[in-house]
Amino acid sequence: VHPSNAARVLALQDRTRLSIIVDDFDVARAWSDAMTAAGRRLEVLIKVDVGFHRCGINAYAPEALDIVQRVADLPGLQLRGLLSHAGHGYLAATSADLEAVAWREIETLTSLAWRAREAGVEIAELSVGATPTARFITRQNGATEMRPGNYVFFDRTQVGLGAASLNDCALWVVSTVVSRPAPTRVIFDAGAKTLAADACRGFGAHHGYGLVFPAVDAPSPDSSITLERLSEEHATARVPAECTLRVGDRVRILPNHSCVVTNLMDELLLVEGTTVVDRLPVAARGRIW
Amino acid sequence: VHPSNAARVLALQDRTRLSIIVDDFDVARAWSDAMTAAGRRLEVLIKVDVGFHRCGINAYAPEALDIVQRVADLPGLQLRGLLSHAGHGYLAATSADLEAVAWREIETLTSLAWRAREAGVEIAELSVGATPTARFITRQNGATEMRPGNYVFFDRTQVGLGAASLNDCALWVVSTVVSRPAPTRVIFDAGAKTLAADACRGFGAHHGYGLVFPAVDAPSPDSSITLERLSEEHATARVPAECTLRVGDRVRILPNHSCVVTNLMDELLLVEGTTVVDRLPVAARGRIW
Repeated sequence: VHPSNAARVLALQDRTRLSIIVDDFDVARAWSDAMTAAGRRLEVLIKVDVGFHRCGINAYAPEALDIVQRVADLPGLQLRGLLSHAGHGYLAATSADLEAVAWREIETLTSLAWRAREAGVEIAELSVGATPTARFITRQNGATEMRPGNYVFFDRTQVGLGAASLNDCALWVVSTVVSRPAPTRVIFDAGAKTLAADACRGFGAHHGYGLVFPAVDAPSPDSSITLERLSEEHATARVPAECTLRVGDRVRILPNHSCVVTNLMDELLLVEGTTVVDRLPVAARGRIW
Repeated sequence: VHPSNAARVLALQDRTRLSIIVDDFDVARAWSDAMTAAGRRLEVLIKVDVGFHRCGINAYAPEALDIVQRVADLPGLQLRGLLSHAGHGYLAATSADLEAVAWREIETLTSLAWRAREAGVEIAELSVGATPTARFITRQNGATEMRPGNYVFFDRTQVGLGAASLNDCALWVVSTVVSRPAPTRVIFDAGAKTLAADACRGFGAHHGYGLVFPAVDAPSPDSSITLERLSEEHATARVPAECTLRVGDRVRILPNHSCVVTNLMDELLLVEGTTVVDRLPVAARGRIW
């Protein structure tokens, strides 16, 4: 969110409670100016880099406290607190590494919040958010908000990270075998426009572009089926010669990354067993400008 | 396309000339049965594997001619010819390798067509299709149809494969700098939901998730800006410390793979220079079931 979008943010403020995130004082000041000009005030959280090294201020840099104080002093903004995303948890090699990411996150936020409060700045919110680290929060103190996103559906990566079991996963792609051109090759009608080309994360190696359950109602996956290659409309799978899949057979596939798969769909089918009970529009997809 | 979709294909036949592709005799027979039951006939091409090893019959297997003859004899189908996609051209290491892919493709098709014609089967169409190999067709004999798709827009991969120059490329993503949290790091508001996570193909190494032109109207790219990592909504770029990009600056990015980028958009903006002159809906995206 950038101040060039101020008119849209003002319109949204009329409809909902809204807060924004900043990690740059000049951007915060531009937002403050836009809000002051409109006679409004906007809630803001400061993004803190907890090790992912994407956005966020460096909490351990000498100027960190200064930025927090200066943002708190801006007349058009109301500082709510600090916010982080421990996205590097996805790269953890073991459960212990992942837990260390979660502890480092909360320590980074609470230590900066402590210094800010010592300096007289009110920090009401400490907001953390990432599905892999979410399970450690019950043993931590300090966070007031958690924002996991992927947990709504989970996916093969979350299973690989120990954040979910296969039975927890709620987003599946049903696909049909459209070719069996060789004994060890099966072609499905789901490619990068359906499964997305994201690699599978998790502890240890997880090959391929999804986990194949060999029938729509199969209770467990067939790990001998590897989705080796995605074209736009096809998945090319390596299978053992004795695999019984034939053209026309339907399978269900657990995607590596449910977020980007959802984003490819205009609507999802809600099922109980194999019965479609409702359709759910994906309202926000495509809303990128 | 699978015979379970026969009703939709019949409906489309009322609106347009339509042909389908098969690489499996049982599927062809099921289509023939569906068409015979409906009192129709459907044009069909047989997909031939020319080295990509996705779909397609093996033209050099003993049974190849037999499949062609049996499909030609099916009462509900009218065999138009043979069809291929040399998708392995994207993996060619040099221009000479790519040209060899193109020659192997046409040789594979023409030799099977020759054997089919010798056996009394009419082969009217030899259809090839892939953008990287398309430029060799003027020196080849035998193909009656070419189906390049990517050439409509081109992209960074096609530039890397020598199929296009930067000036030929017609699909760009405009993105805004939303954070500069460290001297060597710039964050753009375009992630995997905008640029897609496809790797760049081409002769030699092409790092990153797109080629960045450092302003919307910049005439040439800044190859010192590397889009190292995509999150869903962000690109994390490594830049030299002297890079002048600031929060709010807008750049244009040449994507690695335009097909999957188009598929993420509901509409495209048509521009002349930096002026938007029209909007183009992406009519077929999301139409996957």
